[in-house]
Parts: sequence; structure tokens; C-alpha cells
Amino acid sequence: MTKPFVAILMGSDSDLPVMQGTIEILKSFSIAFEVKVTSAHRTPAATHAYVTDAENRGCKVFICAAGLAAHLAGAVAGITTRPIIGVPIDCGPLNGQDALLSTVMMPAGVPVATVAIGSAGAKNAAYLAAQILAVADDELAKRVKENRAENAQAVIAKDAALQLKLASL
Amino acid sequence: MTKPFVAILMGSDSDLPVMQGTIEILKSFSIAFEVKVTSAHRTPAATHAYVTDAENRGCKVFICAAGLAAHLAGAVAGITTRPIIGVPIDCGPLNGQDALLSTVMMPAGVPVATVAIGSAGAKNAAYLAAQILAVADDELAKRVKENRAENAQAVIAKDAALQLKLASL
Amino acid sequence: MTKPFVAILMGSDSDLPVMQGTIEILKSFSIAFEVKVTSAHRTPAATHAYVTDAENRGCKVFICAAGLAAHLAGAVAGITTRPIIGVPIDCGPLNGQDALLSTVMMPAGVPVATVAIGSAGAKNAAYLAAQILAVADDELAKRVKENRAENAQAVIAKDAALQLKLASL
Amino acid sequence: MTKPFVAILMGSDSDLPVMQGTIEILKSFSIAFEVKVTSAHRTPAATHAYVTDAENRGCKVFICAAGLAAHLAGAVAGITTRPIIGVPIDCGPLNGQDALLSTVMMPAGVPVATVAIGSAGAKNAAYLAAQILAVADDELAKRVKENRAENAQAVIAKDAALQLKLASL
Amino acid sequence: MTKPFVAILMGSDSDLPVMQGTIEILKSFSIAFEVKVTSAHRTPAATHAYVTDAENRGCKVFICAAGLAAHLAGAVAGITTRPIIGVPIDCGPLNGQDALLSTVMMPAGVPVATVAIGSAGAKNAAYLAAQILAVADDELAKRVKENRAENAQAVIAKDAALQLKLASL
Amino acid sequence: MTKPFVAILMGSDSDLPVMQGTIEILKSFSIAFEVKVTSAHRTPAATHAYVTDAENRGCKVFICAAGLAAHLAGAVAGITTRPIIGVPIDCGPLNGQDALLSTVMMPAGVPVATVAIGSAGAKNAAYLAAQILAVADDELAKRVKENRAENAQAVIAKDAALQLKLASL
Amino acid sequence: MTKPFVAILMGSDSDLPVMQGTIEILKSFSIAFEVKVTSAHRTPAATHAYVTDAENRGCKVFICAAGLAAHLAGAVAGITTRPIIGVPIDCGPLNGQDALLSTVMMPAGVPVATVAIGSAGAKNAAYLAAQILAVADDELAKRVKENRAENAQAVIAKDAALQLKLASL
Amino acid sequence: MTKPFVAILMGSDSDLPVMQGTIEILKSFSIAFEVKVTSAHRTPAATHAYVTDAENRGCKVFICAAGLAAHLAGAVAGITTRPIIGVPIDCGPLNGQDALLSTVMMPAGVPVATVAIGSAGAKNAAYLAAQILAVADDELAKRVKENRAENAQAVIAKDAALQLKLASL
Repeated sequence: MTKPFVAILMGSDSDLPVMQGTIEILKSFSIAFEVKVTSAHRTPAATHAYVTDAENRGCKVFICAAGLAAHLAGAVAGITTRPIIGVPIDCGPLNGQDALLSTVMMPAGVPVATVAIGSAGAKNAAYLAAQILAVADDELAKRVKENRAENAQAVIAKDAALQLKLASL
Repeated sequence: MTKPFVAILMGSDSDLPVMQGTIEILKSFSIAFEVKVTSAHRTPAATHAYVTDAENRGCKVFICAAGLAAHLAGAVAGITTRPIIGVPIDCGPLNGQDALLSTVMMPAGVPVATVAIGSAGAKNAAYLAAQILAVADDELAKRVKENRAENAQAVIAKDAALQLKLASL
Repeated sequence: MTKPFVAILMGSDSDLPVMQGTIEILKSFSIAFEVKVTSAHRTPAATHAYVTDAENRGCKVFICAAGLAAHLAGAVAGITTRPIIGVPIDCGPLNGQDALLSTVMMPAGVPVATVAIGSAGAKNAAYLAAQILAVADDELAKRVKENRAENAQAVIAKDAALQLKLASL
Repeated sequence: MTKPFVAILMGSDSDLPVMQGTIEILKSFSIAFEVKVTSAHRTPAATHAYVTDAENRGCKVFICAAGLAAHLAGAVAGITTRPIIGVPIDCGPLNGQDALLSTVMMPAGVPVATVAIGSAGAKNAAYLAAQILAVADDELAKRVKENRAENAQAVIAKDAALQLKLASL
Repeated sequence: MTKPFVAILMGSDSDLPVMQGTIEILKSFSIAFEVKVTSAHRTPAATHAYVTDAENRGCKVFICAAGLAAHLAGAVAGITTRPIIGVPIDCGPLNGQDALLSTVMMPAGVPVATVAIGSAGAKNAAYLAAQILAVADDELAKRVKENRAENAQAVIAKDAALQLKLASL
Repeated sequence: MTKPFVAILMGSDSDLPVMQGTIEILKSFSIAFEVKVTSAHRTPAATHAYVTDAENRGCKVFICAAGLAAHLAGAVAGITTRPIIGVPIDCGPLNGQDALLSTVMMPAGVPVATVAIGSAGAKNAAYLAAQILAVADDELAKRVKENRAENAQAVIAKDAALQLKLASL
Repeated sequence: MTKPFVAILMGSDSDLPVMQGTIEILKSFSIAFEVKVTSAHRTPAATHAYVTDAENRGCKVFICAAGLAAHLAGAVAGITTRPIIGVPIDCGPLNGQDALLSTVMMPAGVPVATVAIGSAGAKNAAYLAAQILAVADDELAKRVKENRAENAQAVIAKDAALQLKLASL
Repeated sequence: MTKPFVAILMGSDSDLPVMQGTIEILKSFSIAFEVKVTSAHRTPAATHAYVTDAENRGCKVFICAAGLAAHLAGAVAGITTRPIIGVPIDCGPLNGQDALLSTVMMPAGVPVATVAIGSAGAKNAAYLAAQILAVADDELAKRVKENRAENAQAVIAKDAALQLKLASL
């Protein structure tokens, strides 16, 4: 039997710094993952081989990050029927507007779950993957809920710090 | 024990015609679903009550459709940690560009899985929900794969029809 | 009886530097105010509690600043019927275009009084709050008019300085 | 003593159909109002004279609707320090994107409270004017709250009708 | 030995009406061509098989038309090193703005020769294919030049007709 | 009799650096000019007084530079029927896209001759003013033609330098 | 000696309906004009010949209308140093946004006086041409001022009609 | 007989750094080329003379780079029927969005093969020129295929390096 994991694909190793946000959050949820640099256009055969193999080995969710005419998520969505999360990268002269439209405007039948452009999206790709896996994993669902509560506490703590600061002025 | 289902929320009953595409595809996969008209702004309390109750009754995925400053998906994402799929509706003078950005550009920690604007997105919301549920449902996963193959056959059939038509000219 | 004040809400404490412009102008008009970090998505319950309480304690105008899919102003507008002023913050890869549309394109019945993206908007949120409070406060109305005249004098003084500079060339 | 009222200015009588939405909602709140066709560019003197006179006669809020390079709201904001609500009209080849930016991106010191492009904005201009006047009018504040509750009931009724329709299929 | 031809690929048979413009101009230049309905996402294997086979049979230029997140041209560009001409189709709520960016913003190493959105682009795809084939085909180069001169005469004739019409008024 | 001159108006003295390009080119053509800091919104009365006075003193062309919701050119166009040249300034989070639309999309009857956003536009405002004055000033027309030829020579010289550089590699 | 006139160039005779607005206003000012269909791309030689000849025959202002990648105004601006007025036509899938940027964003040294997209711009091209010719033609300047006053009266009359209509309700 | 070569035209020598990417890739394919600084607007006659002469001397493909209202590619496309590749340069306040639309939205009959904005496009212009020349040059076609394979290997090598790095953590 295969072990479930998430695959993080990126079109270029220059996407790694922003996708570090994905990696750290998956780790914090103790979700197994793989990272792969592969290009929809430059290495379509390698992309196809990896996706097919990863699915067979138990990959449950694919996270695909790409910039410009960002086809990676769509290309992977054409290979597998596992959920695909697309992260539009904010590189190039249009700063991710091209990547957003190239990722989200998929035709009927081949969905890509698109998150925000850039670093917020990279983090949300991990949160969304956790939420998807948690549909059938009550333990993970509990950790996701706890994390959400911690994030709320962080906002409340920042507000408390602000109130102190304002009071001391 | 609760029965798993998908909840389809829409900000206005004027969104129903486009969301009919979601309903039909969920039905074709024999996925249980509920449909709810509720507004992030006009009925926030009813929205909160419904989402909390639906999650308790076994809702595994929320599909949220809204136009203009489309906050419904984000508001639901703030209530539950189940996966949220956002469908930006192409209404109003900006034809869904506002709804796309209002849905997809969520801050870190509260993801919305955004699909295409309008009817393609409405259908893809259902496909994506099926793929998410199929992560832990091998029978559904098989149906999703079969459906994908049928869609491919439909394209191939259209091409065959075109070749006949061109040959007969 | 409650003392009237303005509440400044921001989705993140990273919005504080730009919202400092709001604070300073409210102070210059001797308008009482509170500042609150709270998130429409991460702390919806805290947001709801604060807004309800603030309205009961005499808050007459809410100023809400947020970036990306900026839902804070809309969420607050769904809780209270006091006037809401929305400040779209120019953060993230789209530089506030997403925040502008997410703030201004509200559906009928739940208005948000939207001002310019970023620092000009932060200042104008304070001016607009003053103008709203001045509808029923002749003393404040007089100060607003005087401030407008001072701003006009500042432009005229800059022109005079420029004329001197040009004449001396 | 002057009687308080709202002034609705529009740059062209072709804006009247969309601004009918403003008129009807002001009437429903029993708020006195005037309607004026006047142009920032073609009749600046008439605009100036009207605004000054209206303010003297007790106008508390100005609602200004214009399309294209929509300057009317900004021009009126330069004449009076009463709150100005700007409605960008969705006419011309850019469908109101030009009017939105021309209305909302006001420089510091001269705010325009901008609402959504087109018919949703026209209605929200009236709601916002009511909310502004209600800051110092508890009776009106009560009617605004009641109206909000009625609007919420309308959404809930639409949902109930949908549930019946779905149940009968 | 293989006979040179142009392959016209389109993501959906709904693209055929606009691509009729491509077909007619290729015919007018007596350039052999094939038409294929195939999808980058729904039938990636069929697309790959067709492109590889077509190149082996002598296809010298691929014209790829697609709308929305238009990946077809980029996908074909990843399979073959023959020149790829991309035609962004003006369908969907963004009217081809998404298709333009998805087609033109290709990363270094995998170019797509993008032409205008919609019907002008469909025609120009044929003109461009003819110009490319004419680089090594002096007879075709002559026909292309003659066609250009005819198009110029058509403009001049329209002007002459206008002058007559204006003179008769 | 009045001496003909060009008036350069800018909404803020922060626009001066970019408008220095206008000043230098007017000087190079020996065209008399005045520079004025005045705001459509903050000093509408001063703007009106200056424009009326300047026209009476012989101003033949008004150049108006402004950023954000750039109303200055349109406001001046509503005061005088002399030609108005609008320069959209690339300041603020939208980098001049707002200023371009606010300047160029004027309603019928009140034209603004809009040039490019930012520094290219600042220079072109001066060239355009010179061309307008040259319609009735053959001597100036000659200088404009000579300047154009010099600019062409500068391009040709740059090309020559490049050829030398490439040859020496 | 040559008789002064305005030349109206359009890239296609399909632009004639919108440019009828230019023609009628020039006629109303008794300004002589010529109309020419000529293309920057299809008939560059004819365009060059016409512009050179027209300038020699006394053309003082060129009005150039084009859609899509609208180069006509820029091409004419490269041939003559007479003032060029560019009218971006709202045709094609981008509805004139492409034509606006292609017309207005001219590099330093070769200005195009750009007016609004479409019919408002077509009319304003004529008004602007009249204002330019009026710089040295006091009689025309007087007619332009009178026309402006008539336009103002028309707005005032529309307002009067509206007041009557509202009073009769 | 003429020797085949590619001509690289750029509107300004400030475009040279980005177009260095074109030069290096053409060199790597041993494709002969010329580089020319020439402007569609400032030196139209020199542009025309160069293009006509270059075509006569054996230029088979023209690569044209320009920013802002980028007319150079379109102007050259109006002179010759050789394939024209347009590179939109990301300069100016709109960062190449203006150049993209000015280059790609060409009317029917005068195509420009447009590549991505900026440096990715500069490189792809060279790859596309090589692919076009390779249509009739089997030796070059082989080098293009080999280069594609090398680029794929580079991606695979980057992935291998990443795997090592991740394994060592």
C-alpha cells in the first residue's frame, strides 16, 4: 500500500524561495511531501512521467507553481484527476497577472484550485492541501482547526500589543 | 453518523442559472448536495448558522458563488476549515474581474480554491469537489477518471465529425 | 450616554504605517477614535464582537483598512448600519487594485464609502469621517472648513515659493 | 432655519435611469432631496452656484453621478466640505472603469465617498446618505436598521422559495 | 518524402467559425493544411500523438487557437520545434485578455508567435504561416507580395469610393 | 496687446521634476511660458482666477499635469476654450493608469489633448504646444522641423555608435 | 497661397460612422476639411504621399482615427510636424483599450494629442482642431466660445426640463 | 546571391541590454544577424531605407523591439512581407502592457509574430527566428532540436540539484 503525500511542482528553481512558504506549512502539519522542478514546456515528458508515477505512489494532491503563461498546473490537471492547486508566481513584467489568468481560467472538466498570487498563495496552497487531506483524516482536521485558532490568537495578540503601544503614547 | 455532502452557497438567486452547471455535474457523480441562497453582507448571521450546522451535519466541501465584491467564499472560509471552492460570477459592469480578485486574493491562512469566472468555473467547482471527495473514496475516484475519459472521447468525436465535414466539402 | 468616536479597524498590524495618516488627521480635528487590529477572515468572531460593542459604546463611523481580497470593510458593513469608510491598502503583487475592487463593488443595500488606494485614501478616510460627523456638529464643520482653507493656503504658498525660485534663476 | 436634504447631481440626463435607484431609496426613507443635471466641464459656473446655494439652503450630503473622466464628484468636493458620495456610471467603451478611477483616486484633503459602478452604486449612494444622516438622527437610524432587516428577510425568503422549488423537483 | 503543410489545431469546435478566416486565407495561397480539434487539457495524449505524427508527415507550421487559459499553443510548442502560431480566442467573460496572456507570455526557450485576439488574429495566423513558408519558397513569397499589394489596392479603392460619396453630397 | 505664452499648471509641486522636461523644451524653442502650482480640488478659485487672467494676458495653450484622479486638465478645459494639453503623472499605487483615464476620457465638447503618462508625456506636451503655436508662426514651424531633424540625427548617431561598437567586438 | 484645412484620416472605412461626429462639428464651425481612408500598415506609401501633399496644400491639423494596434496617428506624426489628434476607435475584443495605449503612449519628440476612445473622442477631435486653429483666428475663437456657451445652455435646458418633470410627478 | 541573415531593429539604444539576449542566442545557433537602432517615428525614412535594403541583401526575418506605443514592428511589417517578430519592451510607467497591445493587436493582413514582454521575449525572438529559418534548413532544425534537449537537461539537472539539497537537510 502507498503512503499518502503531497507533490509540490515548480516550473523553475527560481520559484523555490516563495514556495518555501508551502514547504514550511506542510511540515508544520506533518504532511509528507515531495518537491520537484519540472517544466510544462521544457520537460513535458519528465512532467508526465513524474505525475503518473507520483499518483501511483500515493500522491493525493498536486501543488503547481509557475509564472508568466503559467501552464504547469493546467498541464498536470490534464494528466491526473487528483486535486491540483495552482500558485501563480509574481515574476516578470506583469507581476503575476498573467500567471493568475493562465492558472485560474481553466475550461470545464479540468479544474485547477487557484490560490492568491505569490507568497500568500504559496502558504494557502499548503493550508488548502491540508484541508483537502483532512476531509478524510479527522486527526489532521483537528490540527487544521487548532492551527486556525492559533492564527486567530496571533491576530488578537497583535491587537493587544497595539493597544499597549497606543496607551503608552 | 453524518452523511457526507457538498453545500452550494450563492449570494443571490440570480446566480442559480450559472450554478445549475454545478448541480448537474454533482448529480452525474451521485454526490449529495444542498443549495442555499445566503449573503455574506445581507444575512451574515444566517450564513454563519448554516455553515456551522452544515459542517456538523457532514458537509465536506463548500462551493460559494458570488459576483461584484464577492466576499461569500472568503466569509465561509473564515467560519469553517473544510475546503472552500469559490466561483466568481460574471455579473455587473466589470464582468467578473472584480469577483475573481475578491475571491482569489485571500490572505495566508484562509485559502479559497478559486475556479474560472462564470459557467466554466461553475462546472469546475463540481469537478473539483468530486476530486476532493475522491481523495478518500476510491469508487468516486474511479467515476471521476471515467468521466474524464468520456470528456476526452467527446473531443475526439468532435474532431472526427469535423474531419468528415471537411472531407465532404 | 455614550461619547461619539471613530473606530479604525485594520486587517493586519502591517497596515499601521499607512493608517498613521488617518490617526494624525483625526487628532488634528480632536475627534475621539480607537484603533483595532482584527481580521474579517482570521478573527471573524472578534471582529463581530468589537463592532457590536463599539457601536453600543458610541462609535459613529467605522474606518476599515485591508489589502488583497479586502473584505474587512464589507464584513463590518454587514454587522452595523453606521457609515463604513473603506481604505484599500496597496500591498501585494497587484498593488491595491484587488483591494480597491474588493472594497468598492459592494452589492446594493450594504454600502462602503471607498476612498483612494493607500496613503491618500488613509488621509481621506479621516477627512471623510470628520465631514460625516460635521453634518450634525457645527463646531466641527467650522474646523473642517478652516482646515480646507489652510490646505488651500499651503498650495498657494508652494506656488509662491516656486515663483520666487523661478524668478531667481 | 434650513431644512436638511440630499442633493443628487448628475453630469447628464442620460444618467437619470440608473439614478432612479437612488431616488426611490431616498423616498423610501422619507429623506428630502433635489435632483440637478449639471456638468463639471460644460457648466462649471452653474455647478458652483448650485452647490453653494444648496449648502446654504441645508443640503447635508451631495450625491454626484458621472461617467467617463468622471470629475463631477471631485469638482463638488472642491466647493463644499459636506460629504460627497460619488457614483461612477457604467457608460462608454470602458464601462465605468474610467469613471471609478476618476472618482475614487482623490488626493488627500478632498475625499469622495465612492460606491460601486452603476446601478448597485446608485442604490448604495442612497443607503450611504441615509446612514450618514442617521449619525445624528436616531429615528432615521432606526428606519435604516429596519430596512436592513427587511433586506435580510428578502434573502431568506428567496432561499425558502428555492428550497421549495428544489424539494418539488 | 513528405509534403509540406500547415496544421490548424483548435481547443474546441466552437473555435471553428473564427478559424474559418485562417482556412480561407491558406486556401487563397494554395497552402496545404489540416484542421484538428484537440485539447491540451482534455486530450493531451491525442494532442501529443497528432503533433508528433504531423511533424513526421511534413507539417512545417502549427497554428493553435484556444480561449480562456489558452494552453494549446504552449503545449504544442513543448512537443515540437516547428514554429507555433498562437491565436487567442475572444470567448468567455474576459473576452480574450486571458487567452492573450496565456498564449504570449511564454518562458525563454519555448516561443509562441502570438497574433491578435480573435478574427484579426485568425487571419493573421494564415498570413504569418505563409510568410514563414515563403522564407524558402520564392514562388509563395511572390504570391504573398501580390496579396499585400491587392490588400493595399482594396484600401485605396475604399478611399476612392468614399471620395465619390463625399463629392456627391 | 498681449504677448503670447504657454501656461504650465501642475496640481502639486511634487510634479515639478517630471515637468522640468516640459520647461526645457519650451525654452529650447524660445517659447514664453509661466509655471503655476494650483489644484483643481484644493484651490479651485485660484485655478479659475489664474486661468481667466492668463487667457486675458495672452496665454494661447495650457499644459496641465496631475496624478491620481487627475482633474486639473479637465477643470481648466471647463474654464477656457484655449487648447489644453494634459500630462498624466505616474505617481501613486496605480502608476498613472488612473491619471491617464481621468485626463483623456473627457466628454464631448470639452477636449483635453492628452499625451503619454510621465516623463515622455511631459516632453511631448512642450513639443505639442510648439506645434500648435507653429500653426500660425512660420518661424516657429521652421524651428520645430529643424528640431525634429536633429532628433532624427541623434537616433542615427546612436546607431552609428552601435555599429562601431559591434564592429570592434 | 494655400487654404487652411483639417485632414481626417481613418484606417478603415468602417471607422466612418463614428468619425461622422468629427465631420459634423467641423462643418458647424465652417472649417474646411478632407476625409481620407488610408492605412499605416496596408498603404504606408499612400499615407506618406497624402500627408506630405496635404501639408503642402495647407493642412494645419491632422485627425487620425484607428482601432486595435492603432498606429495611424503615430505614423502621421512621424511624417509631419503639424499637430496630430489621435482618436482611438472602440472596435475589436478589447473595445479600444489597445487603441488608446497605442495612440497616447508616444515617445518623446513625436506627440499625438489623444482624445477619448470612440464617439466622445471623435467629437472632441473636431473641437480640439477648432481650438488649435482658433489660436491664430479670432473669428473662429469667438465661434468656439459661442459654441461652448450653447453647449452649456443645452445642459441647463435639460436640467430645467428635468425640474418640470419632477415637479409634475 | 545574398546570404541569409536576421535583422534586429530596436527603437532606442536603451533597448540593447534586454536585446543582448536575442544576440547571444542567435550567435549560439551560428545565425548571421545585423543590429540596427532606428525609430518608427523619429527616423521613418531611415527605417524604410534599411528594411528595403536589408530584404534585398538577404534578410529573412526581422526582429523588432520597442516600448511604449511600440509601432516599430508594425511599421516594418508594413514595408516588407518577410516574417516580423515583435518584442514588447518593459519600459515606462505601464511596464510593457502598452507595448504588448501596440505590437500584437495588428489588423488582418499585416501580422507581427509577438513574443513575451521583456527579457523572456527577447530570447524567444531568437529561438523563433531560428525555428522559422529551420523550416527550410535541416541542419539548423537539428541544432534547434539539440538546444531544446539541452534546455530540458538543464531543468532536469536543476531538479537533481534540488533533490540533493533537500535530501541533505
